[in-house]
Amino acid sequence: MTGLRLYSYWRSSASWRVRIGLHLKGLTFDYVPVHLVKDGGEQHGAAYRAVNPMRTLPTLEWTEADGAVRRLSQSLPVLEYLEERFPAPALLPADPYLRAKSRMLAELVNSGIQPLQNLSVMQRLKQELGADDKAWSAYWNARGLEGLEAAVRPLAGRFCVGDTVSLADVCLVPQLYGARRFGVDLAPYPTLLRIEAECQSLPAFQAAQPDRQPDAVPA
Amino acid sequence: MTGLRLYSYWRSSASWRVRIGLHLKGLTFDYVPVHLVKDGGEQHGAAYRAVNPMRTLPTLEWTEADGAVRRLSQSLPVLEYLEERFPAPALLPADPYLRAKSRMLAELVNSGIQPLQNLSVMQRLKQELGADDKAWSAYWNARGLEGLEAAVRPLAGRFCVGDTVSLADVCLVPQLYGARRFGVDLAPYPTLLRIEAECQSLPAFQAAQPDRQPDAVPA
Repeated sequence: MTGLRLYSYWRSSASWRVRIGLHLKGLTFDYVPVHLVKDGGEQHGAAYRAVNPMRTLPTLEWTEADGAVRRLSQSLPVLEYLEERFPAPALLPADPYLRAKSRMLAELVNSGIQPLQNLSVMQRLKQELGADDKAWSAYWNARGLEGLEAAVRPLAGRFCVGDTVSLADVCLVPQLYGARRFGVDLAPYPTLLRIEAECQSLPAFQAAQPDRQPDAVPA
Repeated sequence: MTGLRLYSYWRSSASWRVRIGLHLKGLTFDYVPVHLVKDGGEQHGAAYRAVNPMRTLPTLEWTEADGAVRRLSQSLPVLEYLEERFPAPALLPADPYLRAKSRMLAELVNSGIQPLQNLSVMQRLKQELGADDKAWSAYWNARGLEGLEAAVRPLAGRFCVGDTVSLADVCLVPQLYGARRFGVDLAPYPTLLRIEAECQSLPAFQAAQPDRQPDAVPA
């Protein structure tokens, strides 16, 4: 597995999850920026469509020993793949029930919050329905984080599931960043905030931060 | 693992996915109906909130040998758990890259389509925004299925990934049923329709059909 490249956008939460995973696994990769907004979105251009016809970020690309070029998209399947090929350090607990719980928490973000407030949904809400896309996004973030806080509490140690980082934490941190951008009051989610601070103390999470990426736009 | 119970609603696509998985694995389970619409939704009542505070379907419940009662929600993590505890017959290919592709296809449905047209989103669109919730749902189904058709084509054999049923097929079949309910023209997705017909020939898929469930309402 050589020539690892990640097609990414600094603020894309799905890209951010995979960046965390790559850094946690200690894998070196080239960063290929795809601007989700400029010129109507570079993901719709011919160059990126040849890489990923679904026009979503991120895409992970690499070359196998036999020369085959491989590509994968969808953040959780990419992370599960990295886990299978590079098992240490693990992104999932060893116990099957706790593994399932970590995946469940990750899905509460991945399918329960993020799809309802991603860029294409917000654009359609605003342009087709004339709706307040930010209020919509804030609503689903708050509702989702309420469920996540309740689900994390009985499982949490230092991180979402016990004392080891897992997929749940990888999904949590980028979502809280998104929620702040939509103006969501995070005070009702003290467990999530505490875990976020633990994660931010780790070098892998620091290296994956949006403002540390080559395509970041200074505030 | 005894006393397997599935909290389900006949038309819930996420419940349906887990029903397929249980039947494919040959696992016997009790069916506990939770009506998503009646009386404002039984999932919001105290009885079900004690089972699943996130108020989503399905929830799988069982008792371990030591007497511990276990519960899991979120359809894909539940299916991954069943795969780890009951590996045969497999719901994922043996090859890591193909496993990832199957998970990717499953996520195109699970996070790419279903969340945008689930009941709570449709209710909010209609009640808060006065929008045409069915047109909204049809749009995201068509857009998602277009991406899925393109992604499946290079991978498909008899099923979505080669000639063996996997998580991708488990997610595909309930989504096509949903797309029909929203009036989506499925003619542009011939590969998906062909695979759906293959799936429907299998007893496990037949047993999981909505109209075969105890809480089904005759048309």
